[in-house]
Amino acid sequence: MAVIGTGLIGTSVALAATAQGVSVYLSDRNRAAARIAAALGAGRAEDPPVPVDLAVLAVPPSRIAEVLIEAQARGLARAYTDVASVKAGPERAVLARAPEPSRYVGGHPLAGRERSGPLAARAELFRGRPWALTPHRLTSRAALDRGLELAELCGAAPVVMRGREHDEVVALTSHVPHLLASVMAARLRDGPAGVPLLAGQGLRDVTRIAAGDPLLWSDILRSNAAAMAGVVKELRADLAQVAAALDVLAEDGDGDYGQGVRTLEDLLARGVAGLAGLPRPGAGPPVAEAGLRILVPDRPGELARLLGAVAALGIAVDDVAVEAAEESGLRVRVPVPTADAERIGAKLGADGWNRAPAESMPAG
Amino acid sequence: MAVIGTGLIGTSVALAATAQGVSVYLSDRNRAAARIAAALGAGRAEDPPVPVDLAVLAVPPSRIAEVLIEAQARGLARAYTDVASVKAGPERAVLARAPEPSRYVGGHPLAGRERSGPLAARAELFRGRPWALTPHRLTSRAALDRGLELAELCGAAPVVMRGREHDEVVALTSHVPHLLASVMAARLRDGPAGVPLLAGQGLRDVTRIAAGDPLLWSDILRSNAAAMAGVVKELRADLAQVAAALDVLAEDGDGDYGQGVRTLEDLLARGVAGLAGLPRPGAGPPVAEAGLRILVPDRPGELARLLGAVAALGIAVDDVAVEAAEESGLRVRVPVPTADAERIGAKLGADGWNRAPAESMPAG
Repeated sequence: MAVIGTGLIGTSVALAATAQGVSVYLSDRNRAAARIAAALGAGRAEDPPVPVDLAVLAVPPSRIAEVLIEAQARGLARAYTDVASVKAGPERAVLARAPEPSRYVGGHPLAGRERSGPLAARAELFRGRPWALTPHRLTSRAALDRGLELAELCGAAPVVMRGREHDEVVALTSHVPHLLASVMAARLRDGPAGVPLLAGQGLRDVTRIAAGDPLLWSDILRSNAAAMAGVVKELRADLAQVAAALDVLAEDGDGDYGQGVRTLEDLLARGVAGLAGLPRPGAGPPVAEAGLRILVPDRPGELARLLGAVAALGIAVDDVAVEAAEESGLRVRVPVPTADAERIGAKLGADGWNRAPAESMPAG
Repeated sequence: MAVIGTGLIGTSVALAATAQGVSVYLSDRNRAAARIAAALGAGRAEDPPVPVDLAVLAVPPSRIAEVLIEAQARGLARAYTDVASVKAGPERAVLARAPEPSRYVGGHPLAGRERSGPLAARAELFRGRPWALTPHRLTSRAALDRGLELAELCGAAPVVMRGREHDEVVALTSHVPHLLASVMAARLRDGPAGVPLLAGQGLRDVTRIAAGDPLLWSDILRSNAAAMAGVVKELRADLAQVAAALDVLAEDGDGDYGQGVRTLEDLLARGVAGLAGLPRPGAGPPVAEAGLRILVPDRPGELARLLGAVAALGIAVDDVAVEAAEESGLRVRVPVPTADAERIGAKLGADGWNRAPAESMPAG
């Protein structure tokens, strides 16, 4: 395998491949970066003696076509992919200008860090992450297969889609969020003196990705400008509506106060609904679930004791809910995998916990 | 101590106080919530028999004044504070209407979770977090002292400031970020089908806080509408500028392409600069630091071996940098506390690492 461009992503791919026993040849415009990657154990900082199976172009989106053309001219590899987060523009350039476009499949591992450069690379960077592959109309089966193998080699989950569709999705899931993080972070500079004192985890999370390399991100954002522009205009319209509502609410009477409140409530509710459509981080495939109902007596600390018992059984405490406060105590629902419901119920029973009588059958 | 309102924050305060041996009396409009908090071990779900030292009003901003007036009418406590994230409006209402405003000091622990309600409460929620206290012009020394004691009891770091200043800061550090997270998350609903497939950690972080309770956040946002409106308008203007730049970049020629690129680069650079002003999460006070220069030979894996040795000495590998790629190898800077520089340098030397000759003195 060859890796052209030994920044964060290229070096991480190379480390992952090397760890699986693949021979990797490293190069970078900046020769020191390739030497650093090699010294990290990511491969050899030299050209391969014969054509390799796959060359990974780990360069910014605007440079993919030129680097591919140069590599194909010297017969570097039998197949080529890249790792850039924009796909349609590079694909158009490849189709228009590359000598052998059929040997190229677009690729994009959804992983990164705020730090850049080879020293930030990690072999496990892609583990469990999606890895988009975007075959174009001329991509050969062999090239697509090499891309799929690379994703699997890196422990990622391949997702095959069209380049244009990919770009529309990542405009929404990555590029516009980056812009929002940047506009928010940029405003902190001009804020009042107390900003660093009251900066909490929420602000850190919202702005975290704004720490990314400005030159790389400028390349990414301008390469996906068309897909982003529409989303940014929608967000600007959303903020205009919010600003109008805030003006009404601040003046406390001018304009329709109730309407201002509804605007905020509606936006907040739509935000919650939007998040509900995302997969839960680290969640596996959904598991059939039953609810055990336990009656917890109204004595100080009893509920904490139940939560401790539940956690000790390996069940996520965050999913436990109090369904009703009854005369006899609190009726608590403990969600458990259906397959384990009887065993866990018996275990809690043996520990002295009473099943709630009216609801003792798992409700599913 | 009394806690009125046993949601996430009120119950967490009560759990922290109980853990320190304080007797806590719990109440909530929703009697079941107080019973749940008591069953978690947060205190007793009953009224105190005699006035308590401190009552904590853990209710939304719009309800603070009315709850304080009711509590002072029945002589519940000698001092009062609250935990709401907006301070100026409640303070005005208290000054205008409460029988004993001198007994009240505003408070705001900068901590939270996306989950709400007493079951999500944690005694350690406030540990190491800032806790703003906002005495007004009539606040007594005794009331401020009770607020300071509460923050310390919960393991938080008290920060004393004016209510109005607090609100301007949190508009920027908390409330506007929440709005941005919500507008971004709301847009995901209408996105293409691939959105859940390509949602990565960046999107999750940017939108995480949008999962907060919409009714509580609607109350918070409208209570701080005046301070937020200005920031939202600035952000809207930023997005208008970005949208114009993206249009130029997407049409690839119409308008000044170079100017569009510069707009993006400037925004991204300002974002990085804005983040630089925030304290590093979990960072202690700054420590005087020296740089050890190590010469790493150009052999595969040698740099990884050095990083392993550095990590084994308890030094943060993320701060290691390659300063130069020389004929004889890579010159690597390992930042270490000045006090430990000699010891660590000797240790690395004993392990066979060579100090880089030209730069062997720590540069500070």
